[in-house]
Amino acid sequence: MGTITLLTDFGEKDPYAGIMKGVILGIDPSACIVDITHKVGPQDIREAAFLVDEYYRYFPKGTVHVVVVDPGVGGDRRPIIVSRNGHHFVGPDNGVFTFIADAASEIRVIENRNFMLPSISSTFHGRDIFAPAAARLARGFYPFAFGRQVTDPVVLTGLNPVADGSTLHGEVVRFDNFGNALTNIRTGTFRSFTKGHTFEITIGGLSFTSIDRTYCANEFTCLAGSAGFIEFGVFQGNFEERTGTHKGDPVTVRI
Amino acid sequence: MGTITLLTDFGEKDPYAGIMKGVILGIDPSACIVDITHKVGPQDIREAAFLVDEYYRYFPKGTVHVVVVDPGVGGDRRPIIVSRNGHHFVGPDNGVFTFIADAASEIRVIENRNFMLPSISSTFHGRDIFAPAAARLARGFYPFAFGRQVTDPVVLTGLNPVADGSTLHGEVVRFDNFGNALTNIRTGTFRSFTKGHTFEITIGGLSFTSIDRTYCANEFTCLAGSAGFIEFGVFQGNFEERTGTHKGDPVTVRI
Amino acid sequence: MGTITLLTDFGEKDPYAGIMKGVILGIDPSACIVDITHKVGPQDIREAAFLVDEYYRYFPKGTVHVVVVDPGVGGDRRPIIVSRNGHHFVGPDNGVFTFIADAASEIRVIENRNFMLPSISSTFHGRDIFAPAAARLARGFYPFAFGRQVTDPVVLTGLNPVADGSTLHGEVVRFDNFGNALTNIRTGTFRSFTKGHTFEITIGGLSFTSIDRTYCANEFTCLAGSAGFIEFGVFQGNFEERTGTHKGDPVTVRI
Repeated sequence: MGTITLLTDFGEKDPYAGIMKGVILGIDPSACIVDITHKVGPQDIREAAFLVDEYYRYFPKGTVHVVVVDPGVGGDRRPIIVSRNGHHFVGPDNGVFTFIADAASEIRVIENRNFMLPSISSTFHGRDIFAPAAARLARGFYPFAFGRQVTDPVVLTGLNPVADGSTLHGEVVRFDNFGNALTNIRTGTFRSFTKGHTFEITIGGLSFTSIDRTYCANEFTCLAGSAGFIEFGVFQGNFEERTGTHKGDPVTVRI
Repeated sequence: MGTITLLTDFGEKDPYAGIMKGVILGIDPSACIVDITHKVGPQDIREAAFLVDEYYRYFPKGTVHVVVVDPGVGGDRRPIIVSRNGHHFVGPDNGVFTFIADAASEIRVIENRNFMLPSISSTFHGRDIFAPAAARLARGFYPFAFGRQVTDPVVLTGLNPVADGSTLHGEVVRFDNFGNALTNIRTGTFRSFTKGHTFEITIGGLSFTSIDRTYCANEFTCLAGSAGFIEFGVFQGNFEERTGTHKGDPVTVRI
Repeated sequence: MGTITLLTDFGEKDPYAGIMKGVILGIDPSACIVDITHKVGPQDIREAAFLVDEYYRYFPKGTVHVVVVDPGVGGDRRPIIVSRNGHHFVGPDNGVFTFIADAASEIRVIENRNFMLPSISSTFHGRDIFAPAAARLARGFYPFAFGRQVTDPVVLTGLNPVADGSTLHGEVVRFDNFGNALTNIRTGTFRSFTKGHTFEITIGGLSFTSIDRTYCANEFTCLAGSAGFIEFGVFQGNFEERTGTHKGDPVTVRI
């Protein structure tokens, strides 16, 4: 029984994710399909790239992860499979796999028409190309059966924080459901950068000189979040609303 | 392992869909249950009728599709099973199966009390009647075991576009998550009507004289959508918000 | 194939519920995971307590119910398993199991580190402690294997209505997706209290002297709802919006 995850920007009122599941179950009736979220910001490739890197590692090896955030559908962007560390990733070659498609991965273009639906629309490759590919990967087909190797996948730039002398420049990547602000500064990066020195982390008008363990430690908290990134919260409140910070706002670490 | 899909107007914060799943799994522990959406407009039978016709064909034969958009629950509308082309549809006889319940289908009323929960509420037949019926269909019970044949199912009128000389009168049926406007004009109907002649499609103050292939073809686009209907979009934007069009707004094709 | 349900306040845009499913499937690949809702009011333990009691009984015995509404995560509240009537409940000991954790239940603290993820965060016990525990319960491990017995679970007070002479004082607990107001007055409690006498139920400026069978019985209706509680609705409308009532508003029954 193969597991297939879905990450899209389809929202929840349309039948599109359900249709993809129908296509998958028609090919692999024993597939176990898991929704990660269908509420990625519409066409927000950057947010999808961070999310993929956050959740995939909690699934067992052999899982197929389908990502459909695909503003260029029907254009000339390639449909691809990225295989890395025992996981398969299926989606458009537009940067959503930036954190996955590195030297250690095998990347294939999906071009074998036998593995697609008979009729290919120009607007819904999730249904016509990605879902059938995922179902066949779950059934055990090898990536090489889908098409030629890709050596130049699209990768997004500017996702990681930048060190400038004694300052590390990061940013707010997204807010979670509780209003906590998640940054692009990995806890490991933070620790390598500060190396035990005293530090000051600033976001908006706020400044922190220590890392809290839990959301109830202080009114405003700066934590090493569960996803492995520095994040900000407010006790029994919503950091986003309380502080008026936005996606993309700068976060700096000074030592 | 039978597949059962759910389409409702329950929304996502209540436990009602989850409760239906519990009832199903109690009867058929191996059922594979797929949510299509629980965000049909509250009590919008018309929207449900279009959605059912859009997604069901992508599921394998043998799938049981449960539709609970049921403003008349507890009144005298009949609970029915419609079987057509290898698929089973379970829900209220209120028009949600207008596109399914034709001469080629077998329709049965659900009246066998052995196939319902022991206690039947007057407000939640999804749980008490439809879920148990779906689980038993998934386990292989035949529709005739549920009750008498129905020959006069409720069908909605005014769903299809109307031809008037050289003009085809359609309307906006729904907006998807990206704000694209989906109409009730099937691509096949459009092609039969225009037969290769020049044409003009109008919606609000906008006018189109060609069908685009992708959303990135123009700023405003008119497409043969992936669901098989003419639809309208705006490149990297939201057609609904940009144009102020509404559900039910007229869409006309002139040749 | 064990069934595991999830009830959280995670919302739907974050990958957190998906991550819990990945952890579960890594331990029990045949688990059948059912979302109840992820839209419990943020940190609303009270609402979660009512919901758990509403849905669990519709699942087959042997089901594991995971509840993550956990404002005290990372503090000293205990992670627990409550076993009752053939069902297992996994979550924080903060009152979410108030209606479950009674004298007839067995309660265990989850303290066996072998049953947790290798690294335990201070902010996401759903992933690190509750999901692994649920997967192991689904695979057949006994509650005693997880830790010591708990005899003093946290229970919330003030959840049930209070009788004062000829008046029963209840309140609005939540509104469902259709805007119906659900109260904390069980139909059974109501019937024991009124014992066939004439009665008057009041909410806001409205007053009812009979219980309707369906939502279409009157414009404003007072029903014995499908969940077993007295509730209020308005025909083809939204009671919450029409009447301006709020969660917590008083509902009284006078005989």
